[in-house]
Amino acid sequence: MCNHCVIETVKQTMLSRRSLFRGMAAASATMAATGVAAPVRAAPATGEVVDLTHTYDASFPTFDGTPGIQYEWAVEFAGNGYQLHKLTIFEHTGTHIDAPLHFSADGAGVDEIEPEKLVAPLAIIDITDRAKEDANATVEAADVEAWISANGEIPKGAVVALRSGWASKVKEPAFRNDGEGKFAFPGFGKSATDLLATLDVAAIGVDSLSLDPGNSADFAVHTSWLPAGRYGIECLNNLEDLPVKGATIIVGAPKHRGGTGGPARVLALV
Amino acid sequence: MCNHCVIETVKQTMLSRRSLFRGMAAASATMAATGVAAPVRAAPATGEVVDLTHTYDASFPTFDGTPGIQYEWAVEFAGNGYQLHKLTIFEHTGTHIDAPLHFSADGAGVDEIEPEKLVAPLAIIDITDRAKEDANATVEAADVEAWISANGEIPKGAVVALRSGWASKVKEPAFRNDGEGKFAFPGFGKSATDLLATLDVAAIGVDSLSLDPGNSADFAVHTSWLPAGRYGIECLNNLEDLPVKGATIIVGAPKHRGGTGGPARVLALV
Repeated sequence: MCNHCVIETVKQTMLSRRSLFRGMAAASATMAATGVAAPVRAAPATGEVVDLTHTYDASFPTFDGTPGIQYEWAVEFAGNGYQLHKLTIFEHTGTHIDAPLHFSADGAGVDEIEPEKLVAPLAIIDITDRAKEDANATVEAADVEAWISANGEIPKGAVVALRSGWASKVKEPAFRNDGEGKFAFPGFGKSATDLLATLDVAAIGVDSLSLDPGNSADFAVHTSWLPAGRYGIECLNNLEDLPVKGATIIVGAPKHRGGTGGPARVLALV
Repeated sequence: MCNHCVIETVKQTMLSRRSLFRGMAAASATMAATGVAAPVRAAPATGEVVDLTHTYDASFPTFDGTPGIQYEWAVEFAGNGYQLHKLTIFEHTGTHIDAPLHFSADGAGVDEIEPEKLVAPLAIIDITDRAKEDANATVEAADVEAWISANGEIPKGAVVALRSGWASKVKEPAFRNDGEGKFAFPGFGKSATDLLATLDVAAIGVDSLSLDPGNSADFAVHTSWLPAGRYGIECLNNLEDLPVKGATIIVGAPKHRGGTGGPARVLALV
């Protein structure tokens, strides 16, 4: 019914990106000439593909503090003309999926998440200002209600993401810990996910290290949201480049059999 | 410009899937009542999300014949209330990406493929009939020209995929070898990829084990296509569910730094 729209979106994406780059180059030249500092981010361009995925390696922060990926050459280029790595990967590293099986003995594996739940409307709840004051700030039911008042109903099958500004801290100790070395990062409060569970939401996502906030004592969101057959996305990047409503998220969840989750490629179309 | 279209596509996807399932259930009931065998595949539904990714585990066929993934529990559910695996993964296993770095000493890693090259129009060149006669059948320049004659120009930035029917053999020895144990599977011929290289194509994809056919002596496609900065996708699934023209492919390439490729989640919107 809307094949044409998808193709048109792709075309517009390419056109928009070219215009965006041209515009940015022109603006940078103007700002350089006038001595005005360049902005950190350009305004989002309609039709753009936005990459919500961090590049990760052994230095990427993990919950337990050990490297989430290690590399070894399985075949080296010299003498072979091609190369490939043998990787050791802990499933919950980088921008990654929490499957129901992560917090249940017999829930769905990451390979069993239905494909139609991987292409979804994206609703973003912004708590950046609050997170500046409180590293363990949470999205609560009142925030979901406020989003609905401002933006209308959350679309069926949506992914609801928390935006806290935390992605920009990913190379700093503050992404994970406070000054005393205690876990400290934003997350969902259970009042919010209990409400979202009544609204046909496919998944929740965070730009921090965990669905629950750093100071959670009981992982209340993990232990209620995931076993109910829903999934989560942790360590999202670039949510700042998206509108709070109107983007489509595409979740490239890994598909190894019986996985409890794993590194994913997550993209959005604006 | 076409935000609305994307959202509408998602909505239509959900509606179409529901209609499809209802239709399939009704058809199955009718066929059961009349003794007519159910068809193997339903006709593709417009607006559907099609999963082009195989589920993989240690039994999934690999080029070198050794298991591409191994699992170990890093945390077990019993006693912890959650669980996760430590995985050992050879990058080129399952439905996966070949990055330029796979066949060049200093080409782009899988993390460096531009996001806008991961959302692309998909053109499918079908050689299923020929592959039934010759396991090492190839797509050649004449096939590309025939596709263009029948379907119009290949869209800029497209992914061009070879469809040979090989995905259905993935659990059989014939996915990889002929009766004598020699590599035997379809692939691209260099005449085709030399032509595609002139047409602003982002990537090529195959439903077999390798971009080059099984009987290739020189990996001519790998050694020319990848070092030129383009990527490939191997072991695609379900191409039979797509039209040869008009689908959009979304390539969830992994994003570990400096990777030569890796398991990907590949989806298509019809």
